[in-house]
Amino acid sequence: MSSFRRLIAGYRFTSETSSGSACEKIFILDGVPGVLWTPEGAAGTRPLILMGHGGGQHKKAPDVLGRARRLVAECGFAVAAVDVPGHGDRPTDEEYDRLATENQARVEAGEDPAPLIAGFPALVARQTVPEWQAALDALQELEYVGAGPVGYWGVSLGCGLGVPFVAAEPRVRAAVLGLGGASASADAAARITVPVEFLVQWDDERVPRAQSLMLFDALASAEKTLHANPGKHGEIPAFEGDSTLRFFTRHLG
Amino acid sequence: MSSFRRLIAGYRFTSETSSGSACEKIFILDGVPGVLWTPEGAAGTRPLILMGHGGGQHKKAPDVLGRARRLVAECGFAVAAVDVPGHGDRPTDEEYDRLATENQARVEAGEDPAPLIAGFPALVARQTVPEWQAALDALQELEYVGAGPVGYWGVSLGCGLGVPFVAAEPRVRAAVLGLGGASASADAAARITVPVEFLVQWDDERVPRAQSLMLFDALASAEKTLHANPGKHGEIPAFEGDSTLRFFTRHLG
Repeated sequence: MSSFRRLIAGYRFTSETSSGSACEKIFILDGVPGVLWTPEGAAGTRPLILMGHGGGQHKKAPDVLGRARRLVAECGFAVAAVDVPGHGDRPTDEEYDRLATENQARVEAGEDPAPLIAGFPALVARQTVPEWQAALDALQELEYVGAGPVGYWGVSLGCGLGVPFVAAEPRVRAAVLGLGGASASADAAARITVPVEFLVQWDDERVPRAQSLMLFDALASAEKTLHANPGKHGEIPAFEGDSTLRFFTRHLG
Repeated sequence: MSSFRRLIAGYRFTSETSSGSACEKIFILDGVPGVLWTPEGAAGTRPLILMGHGGGQHKKAPDVLGRARRLVAECGFAVAAVDVPGHGDRPTDEEYDRLATENQARVEAGEDPAPLIAGFPALVARQTVPEWQAALDALQELEYVGAGPVGYWGVSLGCGLGVPFVAAEPRVRAAVLGLGGASASADAAARITVPVEFLVQWDDERVPRAQSLMLFDALASAEKTLHANPGKHGEIPAFEGDSTLRFFTRHLG
């Protein structure tokens, strides 16, 4: 397949497995490790969802993997995720490590952690926005992905990095974001106009509630819907996974 | 049918029509006009949703009717609504009219309307809670309704009256509420423990946003989910109707 051969140059598939009805391909694109899930035997253009993982996690973290498999099996979409710098199969990033150590020291000295947590994604996004755009370029050349509508899903760090990505990338037509605050990305949020489903954990111990509501408020989207549920940062209820599928089906399907 | 004959005494059906797949019965129960929708040819016990209409509206207002028909046609539920005192086919209530006139004068004199709007449901609920409980008693005696799980749906005035009703009535297992503020009913909200889907209009011109968030916060339910969307008081987006159906199906179906 010619598109496959063209990709192989800068885009090396390292393994291919089939789990359930999703076919999983690990790839490396210009040094960035990623994973692509597609329906088994997929042919032709389909919606592609890019998923951004959380801080300290990686491209195949359980919440990414679980949602990806459902989007593939139940919606027939393609789903991809890549490791964020300093995460997963990528080498340790000295600058990010230094910042993390400094932030930890400042928290231990009694500083409010919120602005420190918030500042980190803005820095990393300068690197991840072009990396993720390059991933879309490459994946959409595959015959069984194609140039269909694109969605983005990311919460926590995946929201901090996702807001500037969605703001910058016109191929993204709908996004699920959340567990993130305005101090990180209110300016970029004001440039987002596509439909957004925004998740808030009402008892989030990491993102102040007011910060979450301000980020939702800052989105310029005419259609945006906030879903808030009781519980801590990592405790998004399972029924929101169903809602994510319906949201992407409504806007991309 | 014996249960039907028993009801006829205090519970007069005045008409029966069939619209689409929903059979509609207008009834009068101890002077309170109501309407019951059931699937055509329904037999046996099924979930029953009681719907509370908005201020100035009535038991067959378009948003009540539209949701009722879908709950009947798509879920097979029974749905009922009764006129609130001073509304629909009920006589004008002099006390409520006097209050409304007084409130209008105070608003025109420059007072904040929020506490005045909020105080009204608390007063009316003393009458509607027992009326709605009597409606459940009567309707659940019908063979084609039965003593199945009960849900409640009501926004705006339907929330102000619904919060004390859901708090008082153990048959209610799940509720959709919203467009209401804490000043009306925070105490009653703190006695609600069933799952709640709570609707907020982000640009509500009648209920201050902070009041809405406080009422959601006051609910004691372990499972409660807030859905906020842009737009004014009356502009709930259509996709929330789909969510209502799924919510009741999940908890009562």
